[in-house]
Amino acid sequence: MLASGSGTNFQVLADAARSGRLPVKIAVLVYNNPGAYVAERARAAGIPAVLLDHRKFVSREVLDEEIASTLEAHGVELVVMAGWMRRVTEVLIGRFADRMLNIHPSLLPAFRGAKAIEQAIDYGVKVAGCTVHIVRLEVDAGPIILQAAEPVREEDTPETLAARIHAHEYRILPEAVRLFAEGRVRIEGNRARIVSADRAAL
Amino acid sequence: MLASGSGTNFQVLADAARSGRLPVKIAVLVYNNPGAYVAERARAAGIPAVLLDHRKFVSREVLDEEIASTLEAHGVELVVMAGWMRRVTEVLIGRFADRMLNIHPSLLPAFRGAKAIEQAIDYGVKVAGCTVHIVRLEVDAGPIILQAAEPVREEDTPETLAARIHAHEYRILPEAVRLFAEGRVRIEGNRARIVSADRAAL
Repeated sequence: MLASGSGTNFQVLADAARSGRLPVKIAVLVYNNPGAYVAERARAAGIPAVLLDHRKFVSREVLDEEIASTLEAHGVELVVMAGWMRRVTEVLIGRFADRMLNIHPSLLPAFRGAKAIEQAIDYGVKVAGCTVHIVRLEVDAGPIILQAAEPVREEDTPETLAARIHAHEYRILPEAVRLFAEGRVRIEGNRARIVSADRAAL
Repeated sequence: MLASGSGTNFQVLADAARSGRLPVKIAVLVYNNPGAYVAERARAAGIPAVLLDHRKFVSREVLDEEIASTLEAHGVELVVMAGWMRRVTEVLIGRFADRMLNIHPSLLPAFRGAKAIEQAIDYGVKVAGCTVHIVRLEVDAGPIILQAAEPVREEDTPETLAARIHAHEYRILPEAVRLFAEGRVRIEGNRARIVSADRAAL
């Protein structure tokens, strides 16, 4: 997993993996901010946490090379970006083609980029949501694995809406990881097709 | 109401108005295609139907002038575009500022323009929907009154998804008209705020 901040999505996945509800092992956490609380969560969960401070690398590509090597050294098969606040380059994407997930707090393709929930409230949509998608070079694009919708209430602030969207994230990100673990995701061009469990082996 | 085609949304509103479930009267239908089935529906419902064939007008503006005059002659207070396949100009929008509704089969701002449901399926979204919004000069923009979300299924074709989205349209378009009739819509810049029923008179 790649994370930059407090790591609530990391915690949800770590708990699900440890309890056996999710048939995966979190091999390693890579984080980029020395003070990120997600590192504490990893230590508490007994998961290796590797700090790769982007400020110490001469370019995005050199950082991504180091990230890719770290992930490979830990035997990573699927990369999950959960609040990873750095743009990734072809160096990393190329090494994990169609095996990198990101979660974004909007119903893509609406409201790409930073502050997606604020964007949605400013626009005045009545339905917001979140998206788990395959990472491609274009930011917040890439084949969509799962989405969840959440009604916007008249009295919502970015904070109150974010709280409800996060609750969806805690559900659909593990679910997306499960689909990969079960071999049920087929990437066809720019679209992701989910096959039924009994067809996953075909 | 303005319509160009078969007029299923027109029928839903006409039925709701006639039964008293919706506290409005449909004063007039303007349609632009001589063979549009919506005209038959209007006649069956006893609603005046006025054909304004866009092919007979020298410009969009001249057509819109005629539409506006027709609507005003019938005492129209709220204009509902339900499958009106012509771009409207400032001539019409200016005469019914913030009193024109359109329904669009996507969760705007995603998938503006024609064939929105096909666009959504081609993109590979997992949640689609529809939007009732105030008409502004920019196509499929304008303050959003109501939206409804509909999950996309793996086996969906544009036709199967459209059938479920239409069912939402038949619910949220009358609901949006009701909100106007009850004085509960406040347009503030590019956003629409819905006030509670007991505050509508304030």
